[in-house]
Amino acid sequence: MLQFRAGLAEMPVYDVTERDWKIKINANESSLNLPPLVEERVLSRLSSIAFNRYPNDEGDQLREQIASSLHLKKENVCLGNGSSEIIEKICYAFGGSGHTIVYPEPSFSMYRIYVEMAGAEGIAVPTRKDYRGDVKKFVSTVQERKASLAIICNPNNPTGNFLPLHDVAYLAHHLDCAFLVDEAYIEFGGSSAVSLMKHFPNVIVARTFSKAFGLASARVGYMLAAPEVVQMVSRVYMPYHLNVLSLVTADIVYQMRDEYAPRIAMTISERQRLEEQLKELPGLTVYPSRTNFLLVKCDCAAALNEALAAQGIGVRCFGEAPGLANCLRISIGSREENDIWFKSVKDFMEGRS
Amino acid sequence: MLQFRAGLAEMPVYDVTERDWKIKINANESSLNLPPLVEERVLSRLSSIAFNRYPNDEGDQLREQIASSLHLKKENVCLGNGSSEIIEKICYAFGGSGHTIVYPEPSFSMYRIYVEMAGAEGIAVPTRKDYRGDVKKFVSTVQERKASLAIICNPNNPTGNFLPLHDVAYLAHHLDCAFLVDEAYIEFGGSSAVSLMKHFPNVIVARTFSKAFGLASARVGYMLAAPEVVQMVSRVYMPYHLNVLSLVTADIVYQMRDEYAPRIAMTISERQRLEEQLKELPGLTVYPSRTNFLLVKCDCAAALNEALAAQGIGVRCFGEAPGLANCLRISIGSREENDIWFKSVKDFMEGRS
Repeated sequence: MLQFRAGLAEMPVYDVTERDWKIKINANESSLNLPPLVEERVLSRLSSIAFNRYPNDEGDQLREQIASSLHLKKENVCLGNGSSEIIEKICYAFGGSGHTIVYPEPSFSMYRIYVEMAGAEGIAVPTRKDYRGDVKKFVSTVQERKASLAIICNPNNPTGNFLPLHDVAYLAHHLDCAFLVDEAYIEFGGSSAVSLMKHFPNVIVARTFSKAFGLASARVGYMLAAPEVVQMVSRVYMPYHLNVLSLVTADIVYQMRDEYAPRIAMTISERQRLEEQLKELPGLTVYPSRTNFLLVKCDCAAALNEALAAQGIGVRCFGEAPGLANCLRISIGSREENDIWFKSVKDFMEGRS
Repeated sequence: MLQFRAGLAEMPVYDVTERDWKIKINANESSLNLPPLVEERVLSRLSSIAFNRYPNDEGDQLREQIASSLHLKKENVCLGNGSSEIIEKICYAFGGSGHTIVYPEPSFSMYRIYVEMAGAEGIAVPTRKDYRGDVKKFVSTVQERKASLAIICNPNNPTGNFLPLHDVAYLAHHLDCAFLVDEAYIEFGGSSAVSLMKHFPNVIVARTFSKAFGLASARVGYMLAAPEVVQMVSRVYMPYHLNVLSLVTADIVYQMRDEYAPRIAMTISERQRLEEQLKELPGLTVYPSRTNFLLVKCDCAAALNEALAAQGIGVRCFGEAPGLANCLRISIGSREENDIWFKSVKDFMEGRS
């Protein structure tokens, strides 16, 4: 008697069940809580909220701030509950029956789910074997399928590599549809597609406060696009979709983003150090990364994952996901955490060889 | 070249643009911020958040607390960004091409929008002239249209009246589909449909922290339903859709909900006082209410609305919305605010007669 939406029972689910890890390096979170100066201002601002009132202009303040820092207008900016909600709503706005959405594989696994939820057909374009994006195949797929939306993640999660700006420009030029560049990791490397927006009005950029700005708890992301696109995508959001607590927190974090430069630099230098060290290990491939994580491949990935878990170290294992068999994704933690997990990986790999 | 979803440009939009009112009684918010004891605990808890971590078990704690207070299980409870997200996702889960969703009119105007966004057909069943629900017509419409979902709002927004529990039970028994009872205002009056859940597994109850618990800023709501329904609707949510700041705030508010009893009682007694006083005014009809607002009707509603706005008093005017012509909805504020707006209404009405 309960008539659920067709296909809902078969829809894939993104598992976020978590256990208590001693070292949690499975979700590309920052290892550090708010910088002390930021914390003080955030808590002071939270203490002055009118908790009883619906959100009013807090979102507009943050939009204006983001816009002005990027030489854009408030009308170019749209906020979301994490970049997740941004991507979900963009897929919805360009989705529906008869529409096709193209994305690379392997990439962020939620694209497929959002595309299905939007009632669109999803087409995954495999990357090359070394995970570099195949730009020509991507363009020809979009053209053949007359796609309404193309998505890339740059730098790419979970492979860590990035597509140079001239390749992104090539895509923007040749894709005759909306083109979403998910820049969740852009603060850690690569060049942003924001500079392309004025030449290519089909370019949409999605970003998040969850990674470099260490605000995963608050769920705030933003989209940069032509005003026409912002207006249409905004139609799809619930009224008051963003809460005041997260908005004022993100507003202060963005004002004080210079406080994050040292920790971003630390993450990049730790990533470089660990990449070099991992390269020396027998039987393990490490992929070049411009993000806050490293992807490694070895034929014993499942056993390595278990060995790490037994020591309370949580990394991300992809099982048999397309293109990611035998891969583990390891987020860059603090220097101390990195030394511990690296030693565990080293002991395991050397014990096998 | 931008292929948006079919119909998106024509989709109705819920306007939440706001101006600075001296007395803001247009959104059924609480007039009071957090009670002092609650505020202290909320701010203390916010200061101990790991801002850098994704939500983990904060939602489960709140689900367990709500469940145990209602003699239900955690598996009966699902959280959302306000009851808005609950209603949006329920419509999606029971929507899609070929599905029909039935709701009363006038009622919460977002039902129609969520139904459209879910790709379902929406059928509005008019209430009687005095806004009482027409239970038999509602059942026959659901049966004739073979609806997948029926929604009522009880007590009803924006009319204020409620459907007695025996009528809700009649609906639960005769509706051969999922049956959502939106209880956003239940703390102010009427009987909850929760007691019907064990006999009628099609009953779904939606509630919010935004009204009686004065937490509109945080956007937290919850749904109570059979575990099967909770599981299916949960498939539709983004991972990490709820942020930690709002979750821990709502958790403390719910723990300390006894602190809200005096202010809820005050709102009810003010509502009764104002209903009596409004009844005495010439040319104005006031409808009986079990909520934190009053609906009034007069043939000069637009002029009254303007006169109030000119004094910095913001009430809700419905323009030409079906069944609501010449109506204004006025939220119950503090005693001082109520005295002010009542005097303004009285002066206006008496000046005309």
